Amino acid sequence: MNPKIEKLIKLFAKLPRVGNRGGQRIALSLLQDKTGRGIALANAIVDAMENIVPCPRCGVLTDVGAGVCEFCRDSGRANGQLCIVRDLSDVWTLEKSSVFHGRYHIIGGLLSGASGILPTDLNVKNLPSRITDEIITEIIFALPNTVEGKTTQHYIVSTLNDVENVVFSELASGVPLGGDLDYIDDGTLTLAFGGRKSL
Amino acid sequence: MNPKIEKLIKLFAKLPRVGNRGGQRIALSLLQDKTGRGIALANAIVDAMENIVPCPRCGVLTDVGAGVCEFCRDSGRANGQLCIVRDLSDVWTLEKSSVFHGRYHIIGGLLSGASGILPTDLNVKNLPSRITDEIITEIIFALPNTVEGKTTQHYIVSTLNDVENVVFSELASGVPLGGDLDYIDDGTLTLAFGGRKSL
Repeated sequence: MNPKIEKLIKLFAKLPRVGNRGGQRIALSLLQDKTGRGIALANAIVDAMENIVPCPRCGVLTDVGAGVCEFCRDSGRANGQLCIVRDLSDVWTLEKSSVFHGRYHIIGGLLSGASGILPTDLNVKNLPSRITDEIITEIIFALPNTVEGKTTQHYIVSTLNDVENVVFSELASGVPLGGDLDYIDDGTLTLAFGGRKSL
Repeated sequence: MNPKIEKLIKLFAKLPRVGNRGGQRIALSLLQDKTGRGIALANAIVDAMENIVPCPRCGVLTDVGAGVCEFCRDSGRANGQLCIVRDLSDVWTLEKSSVFHGRYHIIGGLLSGASGILPTDLNVKNLPSRITDEIITEIIFALPNTVEGKTTQHYIVSTLNDVENVVFSELASGVPLGGDLDYIDDGTLTLAFGGRKSL
């Protein structure tokens, strides 16, 4: 195979959920496209890579030189609520649902022995100063409902022990909307029973 | 969402089998990667888009200015066999299996009323001259085993009616290796029965 095409396929194949077959299809579709879609994509990648940085306050990716991100700039979102999430895709998911109107804090990972992520790797250093500066009254944990997620949540709560006038909360566990009990795992069912509500 | 990131996601989402969720994952993985994988990908795209063209003889993508492609240059492949395929990914598939050692001819599509592909859209104009110049003795059709594939094959054979000393062949139809009869469709089963071999 032509080395330039081979290199392109390999780079595409390494992207999440693409793989070798997908990389071949993508490379071929770009090379056979006469409308310059490939060049447009290359330019967009370079533009984003060179001009997007994490917000120094919350970690949301934002334009370089813009100071803080759109969420931190928006005084309408300074409602005292701070939602702690793992990464930017969680912010996008929450934004799409329009369920939360406060500010975010991206910690960038979950504590995990398997992948070697330590407390020092989490973006949590400025949490106390954010709570003070932005007069945060509630911290909502929206981390994955897994062992790693819960471990990370406990760790963060423990580091904020001496912070006053802040309540901590986490998303409810239970049966998802439209969820058939036949297809719900035992762990979820146990949590749903434990958290049952009176009618 | 940040407009630069949004644009990047949209361009990735349009690639084959990626979609919006996949585009988000890919964009995020590149933006969060510190090793410059995004820039390397952008450079590889531009390099391939600007320096790769179809071989003027057979249609295989090759370096610009190299004349004909690696297959057409390789005199070891001038064995009189010419394999007609739809696109470059079919060439890659056949090369991986090491089943064919002749030359290729990419026609670039299949005749189809639905997608409006006409005989003039097929890369077949130089087939007669290739047969003469390269002393082709067998033309092997490796087009998809579909109505469009067979229609295209019949069309190409009809245009080569007055070519002499060439035999035409097509890939065998039948039960794939490891194929359980339970999962084989009726059409394939009919073809496999019709083409049965004595032991």
